[in-house]
Amino acid sequence: MSNMTSTGRHFLAGIDELKRELGLQGTTVAARLAQAVRGFVERDLHALDEVAIGDGDINARQMAIDDRAFKLLALQQPVAIDLRVIVAAIKVNADLERIGDLAVNIAEASRRYMDYGVIDEQEVIPRMTDVAQAMLQWSIDAFITGNVGLAQTVLERDDILDTLRDQAFRRLADTMAKTPSVMPSALELMLLTRHFERIGDHATNIAEDVFFVVAGEDVRHHAHGLAASE
Amino acid sequence: MSNMTSTGRHFLAGIDELKRELGLQGTTVAARLAQAVRGFVERDLHALDEVAIGDGDINARQMAIDDRAFKLLALQQPVAIDLRVIVAAIKVNADLERIGDLAVNIAEASRRYMDYGVIDEQEVIPRMTDVAQAMLQWSIDAFITGNVGLAQTVLERDDILDTLRDQAFRRLADTMAKTPSVMPSALELMLLTRHFERIGDHATNIAEDVFFVVAGEDVRHHAHGLAASE
Repeated sequence: MSNMTSTGRHFLAGIDELKRELGLQGTTVAARLAQAVRGFVERDLHALDEVAIGDGDINARQMAIDDRAFKLLALQQPVAIDLRVIVAAIKVNADLERIGDLAVNIAEASRRYMDYGVIDEQEVIPRMTDVAQAMLQWSIDAFITGNVGLAQTVLERDDILDTLRDQAFRRLADTMAKTPSVMPSALELMLLTRHFERIGDHATNIAEDVFFVVAGEDVRHHAHGLAASE
Repeated sequence: MSNMTSTGRHFLAGIDELKRELGLQGTTVAARLAQAVRGFVERDLHALDEVAIGDGDINARQMAIDDRAFKLLALQQPVAIDLRVIVAAIKVNADLERIGDLAVNIAEASRRYMDYGVIDEQEVIPRMTDVAQAMLQWSIDAFITGNVGLAQTVLERDDILDTLRDQAFRRLADTMAKTPSVMPSALELMLLTRHFERIGDHATNIAEDVFFVVAGEDVRHHAHGLAASE
């Protein structure tokens, strides 16, 4: 083992770089989700098709981040909070990549929905997109800055998202029962609500990792109603 | 640093114990999924209610396994395959817990389905349950034994599961269009197909981790069609 001070300095730079890359990935994923949502709201086929073809950049960066995290674990042998932040980064990395996949799913479902014909979206879906996008942004910020208060806000919003999903599901089922001809469109909207719900679940995972990193505290199976949230 | 041989022996025992605990968790989760499926197939309300109340044991064991993995990382400072297996164990642990949550979701949806009234399940759903259960069992076995061939089989089955889900979705939509009165039941069946699809996704994650652990090889964004599989 060489000069400890130098090792320490390199190591902190390595963690900073890991967080910076994860922040970049978060920004990329959030931008793609925003484009999918905009495509849905503005009926912009071109925007949706751009999202739907996928994004190799997100996948490539996910592997690069994992690689960096593994090298930090293997070469620097961190303990305590440094260890927690690196392992959490690997998990957050996986959540972000899944959100990228969900943006693709949202674009595809929106595209089919527009093909089947637009129906009354009953206010619920635009509200879901707002909540899901805010949860994603806050969870990334909370992770990068270690902000437990912001992470707590994310956990609370997940209940709102679940309530909106239930409302949308019931209303869309009623619509289908009254007007069977709109069923294909209504089914795609149902699918969309589930995609947004799952973005909320991934943001919740990220927020839980903030508690774990900062406080060494595991909030996964406690009182905020997440036991079967996924 | 004390006697290296002793450290090495303790360390290998620690990894064995980690795998053993993960195997136990896998068995517990698979048993709960099997009970949910049996409850659905046999219309057994009691079995479904037992699954639906949740399982604190799975949650408690998940936290214990994470704890053990973190201690191994912090105290033993592993490298190469040992490092990969421990980090992968943390990810597999998360996947198993989510499958436990999905068993709860399946039990709840089955319960509502039976309340709404049983309809023709068109062969597709029983086939999905078979494939999803096999994928889960194989992925756990592949991880515990480091069997790459078995992991490959899991990856291949995921395409079958996605095809069955699409078939089920289309047929159920047709059924609803023809007979709007069965819609509540058909919607719950659609929800069930998505839960089984997601069990397949989690099993796929576990199988990918086998490649990563054994070969140090990242198969996530390669040719087996997983880019937006979630």
